Amino acid sequence: MGLLEEIKEQPEALSRTISKGRDVFVEVAQRVAGCTHVVIAARGTSDNAARYAQYVWGMRNGLTVALATPSLFTLYGRPPRLEGALVLGISQSGQSPDIVSVLEEGRAQGRPTVAITNEPGSPLAQAADVVVPLHSGPETAVAATKTYTAQLAVIASISEALLGRHDTLDQLPELASDALGRDDMARSTAQAMSGFEHAAVLGRGFNLSTAFEWALKMQELSYVVAQPFSTADFLHGPIAVVDRGYPVLGVIAEGPTDSDVIAALQRASERGAPTVLITNSSKPDPPDGGVMRFASGVEEWLTPIPAIVVGQLFTHWLAVDQGNDPDNPRGLSKVTRTT
Amino acid sequence: MGLLEEIKEQPEALSRTISKGRDVFVEVAQRVAGCTHVVIAARGTSDNAARYAQYVWGMRNGLTVALATPSLFTLYGRPPRLEGALVLGISQSGQSPDIVSVLEEGRAQGRPTVAITNEPGSPLAQAADVVVPLHSGPETAVAATKTYTAQLAVIASISEALLGRHDTLDQLPELASDALGRDDMARSTAQAMSGFEHAAVLGRGFNLSTAFEWALKMQELSYVVAQPFSTADFLHGPIAVVDRGYPVLGVIAEGPTDSDVIAALQRASERGAPTVLITNSSKPDPPDGGVMRFASGVEEWLTPIPAIVVGQLFTHWLAVDQGNDPDNPRGLSKVTRTT
Repeated sequence: MGLLEEIKEQPEALSRTISKGRDVFVEVAQRVAGCTHVVIAARGTSDNAARYAQYVWGMRNGLTVALATPSLFTLYGRPPRLEGALVLGISQSGQSPDIVSVLEEGRAQGRPTVAITNEPGSPLAQAADVVVPLHSGPETAVAATKTYTAQLAVIASISEALLGRHDTLDQLPELASDALGRDDMARSTAQAMSGFEHAAVLGRGFNLSTAFEWALKMQELSYVVAQPFSTADFLHGPIAVVDRGYPVLGVIAEGPTDSDVIAALQRASERGAPTVLITNSSKPDPPDGGVMRFASGVEEWLTPIPAIVVGQLFTHWLAVDQGNDPDNPRGLSKVTRTT
Repeated sequence: MGLLEEIKEQPEALSRTISKGRDVFVEVAQRVAGCTHVVIAARGTSDNAARYAQYVWGMRNGLTVALATPSLFTLYGRPPRLEGALVLGISQSGQSPDIVSVLEEGRAQGRPTVAITNEPGSPLAQAADVVVPLHSGPETAVAATKTYTAQLAVIASISEALLGRHDTLDQLPELASDALGRDDMARSTAQAMSGFEHAAVLGRGFNLSTAFEWALKMQELSYVVAQPFSTADFLHGPIAVVDRGYPVLGVIAEGPTDSDVIAALQRASERGAPTVLITNSSKPDPPDGGVMRFASGVEEWLTPIPAIVVGQLFTHWLAVDQGNDPDNPRGLSKVTRTT
């Protein structure tokens, strides 16, 4: 199956993730409840899902979420104390030795360990007390798409389970489906931006994860040097690189951070930068340039799913327009093993 | 005073930071001792110092270090529980409202709060139980240099104080001085690389912070689209952007991670990418390209100071060669206030 098919399969895959996972979400929530914080080990796309967890679990469930520094556990062999922590590994393949090592250390220190993976028989799953399978079906394209939105859905579901709620996420497949219906818009926006070689990608809050994941897809599929930033970090230095011809992309939903990101795009636009925005916000005026809208009226914490679906479609068409094969990006293989 | 003067002032500034701070390092260590983990709020250059703390305190002192997500505290007004945490803010100016908010929330939750700042009268300092002044003297260049190495020295000193040791860091000014003596090498390497517009910057472990800070200096001063990566993250996707003409830079000291970074540079070099390496390692053969060496035989955890000094000199000359004014980068001001 090719990348575009896997992108389009997401509503169905999300339905499976949510419905089949119900019991295990509750089980994870019970383990989390006894902890003061969560330490997450992940790489690449899965690390972007971890960023989403920082915001969702931080804001809705009051949890401090730390992203692990795997080399402490592997190359240096000097892991920190994990007292008070639930240790979570996220990996599509469950294969990367560095991520497995963090869970093994968590277990050695007597901490609860959880794996979110598409491969329930993987080494990562074996190192975990609780395994949350993604139920995404085989993902064969090198660039992860449906397993990313499944990881987000799992994180959202655990947040709901921590609040004692269930069935509230049944709208996720429909949100993904609505976003897929905006393919023509994504395609025409990508055509207008074809040929750009680098870009900054801004986000904040819940959609900081989307900015990171959209940038990673552009790197993998279109070889665009796309660098993601929190808007606040961007203004503390990197904005200096923006000049005529340096595109600035943004992704932000209706909510407390939308003005922030749109103002940064406006500032870049005034300096002559082309801009592209994925949003469902109508509050501020976005700058001239490509605006790709998804459904409004969605609770902000759930918007990273429809927002990245639009970003995936955009990136797929950008790769095609630039003459690249989105199913076989150069220099990458599906499973990357790092230590 | 200009940027180059501030770069050259670092040995003297570091002496002040270390000698004047002795008592306060012990006081911070006492506060840390009662906590299970540390939450750090910082932006830009100070956030790169926070990355150094993740490795130094994680590896040498067994502490889990989480980087805060300030928008939870500000724009969203939904801060996480900070139970068990010491809350630390790092900021040269002590002015940015988002960083101040994180400390204020820490105090409201009854947690110990610490500020590392060059401005002991700043709002950040006022929100902290313990203030660690950098004693760097006024920093007038927009791009931070001497306050960054001072922040690293403070973090290293607190690590030593946690181990009950003092006076062991007296070698830092000499390390900085030795690195400054390598100015000709930095200048000629910069000349050879002049004209490049983008780059990946790889590091790992202790020097991941150096990769991030070197990339930020290049963005600020030379408008190079320099994107920092952990080598492991780079191999999980972004390596796809590397092709003939896309430079890959690396910074790594002698130690368990040197082979890892140098192998990634070799892989990039085989694909036709120009490479530049800052290192003191002689173990593996670095790829052809610019190699800037600093003193060998230094304990790895202290190398981020001499390594970034070489990176600062390189970046200064790169900016000059490209006809930019390193004292007045476009679009930036010394104090950035974000919420």
